[in-house]
Amino acid sequence: MVTSEVIHAMPQIKEIQTGICHVFIQHTSASITINENADPTVRKDFEMYFNKVVPENINYVHDDEGSDDMPAHLKASMLGSSVTIPIHNGRLAFGTWQGIYLCEHRDHGGARDIIVTVWGV
Amino acid sequence: MVTSEVIHAMPQIKEIQTGICHVFIQHTSASITINENADPTVRKDFEMYFNKVVPENINYVHDDEGSDDMPAHLKASMLGSSVTIPIHNGRLAFGTWQGIYLCEHRDHGGARDIIVTVWGV
Amino acid sequence: MVTSEVIHAMPQIKEIQTGICHVFIQHTSASITINENADPTVRKDFEMYFNKVVPENINYVHDDEGSDDMPAHLKASMLGSSVTIPIHNGRLAFGTWQGIYLCEHRDHGGARDIIVTVWGV
Repeated sequence: MVTSEVIHAMPQIKEIQTGICHVFIQHTSASITINENADPTVRKDFEMYFNKVVPENINYVHDDEGSDDMPAHLKASMLGSSVTIPIHNGRLAFGTWQGIYLCEHRDHGGARDIIVTVWGV
Repeated sequence: MVTSEVIHAMPQIKEIQTGICHVFIQHTSASITINENADPTVRKDFEMYFNKVVPENINYVHDDEGSDDMPAHLKASMLGSSVTIPIHNGRLAFGTWQGIYLCEHRDHGGARDIIVTVWGV
Repeated sequence: MVTSEVIHAMPQIKEIQTGICHVFIQHTSASITINENADPTVRKDFEMYFNKVVPENINYVHDDEGSDDMPAHLKASMLGSSVTIPIHNGRLAFGTWQGIYLCEHRDHGGARDIIVTVWGV
């Protein structure tokens, strides 16, 4: 899960009483969002739904990299390239069911780079 | 309106010349967005449109909590779990028509918790 | 491009080693998102796709300002009113292909105001 990778990469979170954690993805065909971290079928339904609502075959002009390219750009902006999460008492102040999703929108996307920034007191 | 609740809950906003206000919802079936705060029919059309574009009957795998559950998760990520608003001269630097929407995506969602964080000088 | 306008308007970015740049639009019928800054056909496909998925003719209640008004509000919240970008070594820490889009959702939207806020050390 991306959530635990973020927490392990940023031990500084533990030292912050009140603050913010910003998670940013440096790509335009993948996205970062917050959703349910418990039942993995939610992620399967995300994949199914976004493939349905952003189809590959609607005569995109931008199609040099294949039919999954432009849908990936659209999904990336619908879901967003960053999330910001409050920090409280040294922990991400998530609700019980919240976690970070890294959404891959290409069929063969390769490794993805994210930048995590935290601030607070 | 959520906007006035946020302002009343955070008197510190008045003391900030330049800063940011972050509003975060701790749920995965409700969302926070910014839109028109004047005509309440905008909110009615939001409800109508998102029910149409995220239907309940498309064979979701994740349906243990009912047919409105998975659509609620999808709407939550399409609209987002937080907003960030500039603070200028002790006020939220909204445009004339902007306000904060708390969007409830479950049919019977119960109370919702939000966390407001402000910073600046 | 909005990206270069933001950078030129904020020479302070050059002085920040680690920080954040926040770009906020003060309108509810235009939006700010991050996507591919290279091939202009991506922006054309954005326009085409969002016109298709948010149609003008589905019996909106809020239609006093014309048939493009309510779709503009919906697109604005789907894409969002702000982006936050990490700053690293005096530059916006974008990936190779990323840039800022200001998306105009009205047919005759007029000038748009954005507020840029940066912080860091």
